[in-house]
Formats: sequence, C-alpha cells, structure tokens
Amino acid sequence: MPNEPTAPETPETRHVRVRCHELAPQLGQLSANLTMIEDAIRAAVIDEVDLLVLPELSTSGYYLRGKDEATSCAIPIAHPILERWAGLLSPNMTVVVGICESRDEALFNTAVTLGSGGVLGVYRKTHLWDGELTIFTAGQDRPAVTETPVGRLGVLICYDLEFPEMPRFLAVGGAEMIAVPTNWPLVPKPSGEHAPEVIQAMAAARSSRVAIACCDRRGAELHNEWTQGSSIIGSDGWPTGTLSGDRVDALLAIDPHRTTISPRNNVIQDRRPALY
Amino acid sequence: MPNEPTAPETPETRHVRVRCHELAPQLGQLSANLTMIEDAIRAAVIDEVDLLVLPELSTSGYYLRGKDEATSCAIPIAHPILERWAGLLSPNMTVVVGICESRDEALFNTAVTLGSGGVLGVYRKTHLWDGELTIFTAGQDRPAVTETPVGRLGVLICYDLEFPEMPRFLAVGGAEMIAVPTNWPLVPKPSGEHAPEVIQAMAAARSSRVAIACCDRRGAELHNEWTQGSSIIGSDGWPTGTLSGDRVDALLAIDPHRTTISPRNNVIQDRRPALY
Repeated sequence: MPNEPTAPETPETRHVRVRCHELAPQLGQLSANLTMIEDAIRAAVIDEVDLLVLPELSTSGYYLRGKDEATSCAIPIAHPILERWAGLLSPNMTVVVGICESRDEALFNTAVTLGSGGVLGVYRKTHLWDGELTIFTAGQDRPAVTETPVGRLGVLICYDLEFPEMPRFLAVGGAEMIAVPTNWPLVPKPSGEHAPEVIQAMAAARSSRVAIACCDRRGAELHNEWTQGSSIIGSDGWPTGTLSGDRVDALLAIDPHRTTISPRNNVIQDRRPALY
Repeated sequence: MPNEPTAPETPETRHVRVRCHELAPQLGQLSANLTMIEDAIRAAVIDEVDLLVLPELSTSGYYLRGKDEATSCAIPIAHPILERWAGLLSPNMTVVVGICESRDEALFNTAVTLGSGGVLGVYRKTHLWDGELTIFTAGQDRPAVTETPVGRLGVLICYDLEFPEMPRFLAVGGAEMIAVPTNWPLVPKPSGEHAPEVIQAMAAARSSRVAIACCDRRGAELHNEWTQGSSIIGSDGWPTGTLSGDRVDALLAIDPHRTTISPRNNVIQDRRPALY
C-alpha cells in the first residue's frame, strides 16, 4: 500500500486505504464474473484495504445485447452472493460493486455497498447512457449518503458524474467520499490531458472538498475499448495513489475542516442556493 | 489570430474570435488603469477580436487596502469612460471588463459587458473571496444571460466559478459562452497539471457544453503572485487557442447541436432536477 496522504491535514485527520480494482467481466457470464469479483474482494481483505471500489456492471459486463441477455445474468439484491461477499469482509471494510439488478420485472444498473454485516446501501443509476436506456430503468431516488465503516459515503455510477449537481448534492448531504463504479468507453483527448471523466471528478472533488474514487474496467468486449482510467482523487482535487497492474491504491486523508479554505470562506457554506 | 476551431462542428456552427488579455493594473491608480484598459480595447479592435475579456478589478487592482482606497478608485456604471470605450467598438464586438464599482454608498466587484451601443450588462460578483468581504457588497441577483453581438453570453467573476451551480445555471438559461474576469492568486499544484481553477472551467464547460473564457491578470501587487492562467475552453471542455505574450486568442466554435452527445443523450435535457 502507498503512503502519501493527500492535503489538507490536521490532528483530526482520518486516513482511509482505498483501492479501485479494474476488473474485466465476461459479457453475460454471471458465474465467471461472480468468481472474479470474489477474488478481488479476497485480495483486498488480505491487503487490508478499507474501501474497495469495483466497476459498473461487474456481474454482467456492459454491452448487453438486449433485455433477454441482461435478464439472463441479472441478480436481485436478495441474491445470496451478496451476503457471502459481506461475510468475507473485516469489520472495518466497505465494498462498492456495480451489478446488473433484477427487481419487480425491471432491470437496474445498480451499485451495492457492502459491509461485514451485509448490504449497507443500494444505489440505482439515475442518468442512463445511450443503449442503457433500452435495457435499464433509471433510478428514481435522490442519491443518498450511507454511514459505512470508512465514513459517510456517497455512490454514483459513470454518467451520473457528468452532472455536477450529483456530487454536490452528496457533499452538501455530508458525504466525505464518493465511490463511482464506471465503464468509461475510450474517447479521444489532447495529449498530456487526463481523461475527460477524470477532469470532471477532479473538479467535483475540489468544488466540494470531497474525495472521489472512480473504478473503471478493462478487457475487450465486442471490440469496444475502455479508458482504464481508474482514479482516486483527494479532497484537494488532485489524483493520488499508485497504479499497480489493474489496481490503484491510495491512502486518502479525510479532514473534518477540509471545506474551510480561507479565514472567511467555506465551499459549502458560501453557496447561495437562493440564486441558482 | 489562430485558426483552430474546437469541436463539435456542423454546417450551422458559428465561429467567434475570443481574446483574453492579461493586464497588470496599478493598485489604486484609476487614471493609469483606465488608459491601460483603453489600450487593450484599441488593440482588440485592430485585431478584429469579437469578444474581448479583461481581468477582474482591472480599473483598481486587487489587494485594495480597505474601503477608503477602494472608494478612491471606484466608478459608477454611469461613468463616461464606459460610453467612451463602447464608442471605440465595431458593431460585431463585445467587451467584458472587471471594475471596482461604486453604487448607492456601496462598493461592488463588478463585470461590465459593453457593445458598440453602450453597456449591455452588469454583473456583480456573487461569491466574495476572503478580504473582498471587508470591502465589497455581494451581488444579490441571479446570474443573467445577455444577448450580445457574439451570442448569448453569461458572466461570472473568479471565485464564482468554483460553484458548479453558477456555470450550470447560465448554460441551462441558454448561455453559449461564459466570460470570467479573474484574479487567480498563484497556488501550488502537482507538476504537469493545469491550475486548479482551469480544471474547474474545463469541467464546467464539458458538463454543459458551454465555452468558457477566463481572463487572469499579471503584474506584481504587494508581493502577491498571480497564476497568469488565462484560458479559453471550448464547449468540448478542452483548452484551445494560442498564447502570445500577455494575450490568449482562440477561434471558438459555437454549434447549436453541441449539447446532444449521443443518439439518446443531451447534457441539458438529461438533468433530473427533481432529484437534486
């Protein structure tokens, strides 16, 4: 594990070991994908990770060819595998994993938050991207902040992060960290620049002084390429941590005073919501 | 002028020649600063710039030592210099300049939008930074979109841009471009990264597919250093244009279809404001 905490720090700063583990799900192959996820969780337990973030739709793959294929590999929140994974965790540990969820005849692009006691939170993607609109139902709930062993955690999925309202809403609601399972298709960018989605995450982190951990995916899927842009952004807005193979690990500093940025300014209190 | 329009483009794309001219105001020296601003406007007229953006508080300098000094170099919107500058402009030209404004016994950190016919818009900084709170009154109005010769223009000032609600509100209100007079104090950043304020602008531009032109300042002032980070960001979120001395010039592409980003997605229509 790396050892470079992000700014700012005071004596009250907490540190959280975060890992984004880029998996390569096999399209439509539920059983193989569940094994792959379990292997990643077991590795994180061994490495004493506090917060493990896994990609969007880890259980199913992304480019599902219609509702039938998606249904064939969808699981409900009550599926015993989630309890099994929770049972693997140490008490201080939190896992966020993207699943293809079946619920009341509908399919959702969902992220489940797990602690050692079981399911802590369920978030259903609010903003669906392109072909997802032909398969999934959009989430209808406001994004929620969940109390977890690593602190107050918000969850978003991929395209959600392009809406600055979403991380802002979570941060105003008290989130200290936001976990973002993603599948970022590779897009062109000028040389020397971060992937555009990483820039969105950096700006969102800095605006609200909230740490953001985005876990992208890898592996070929119907000839589509992925950004493989997993990034852990400190509450100061800068990427942190180290990339090793398919994993990014970082030690995040969560400081209770992080939103105070000058003797007279606080990024949350300075908002003027009556005007916008 | 450079000639590299930014994406995306269709047959309906308009092009706008934008300049950010980094000035070095002399603290408290109104007369010298008015001359400096006029020189910059005259140069832009000669170079056939369509939109000229000048720094925050160009008429006064930034680190004003109390209300007395600020009052000594403040001007009202009715000051004849604004009509004089407007009279210099060609009919297709728009100028946004930051001034220290006096109004009804109060002082405002203001940006004035000028066309050849006179004052087109007045924006008073909504989010004041640190010492500004001891001198200026915060603006009380919602940010407005102004019809100008270069199109529908929004204006923000410096710290305003750290609030993602502000550029979003302007874009939803129809802004095609946002002009941002700034004074960015130099802050540390990791090597290879843009200034953090530029990252905010890039993310805001991409989120709403709105072009953003930030004009920073230069010149020593009470031993404070400036970022000198003037940036013109296309509606695709990438910096564009060329830096030459104290000026950044760019040819911005404004496409009416720019907010449609997939066969089924539009960054403005996809918002779900009932949820956040």
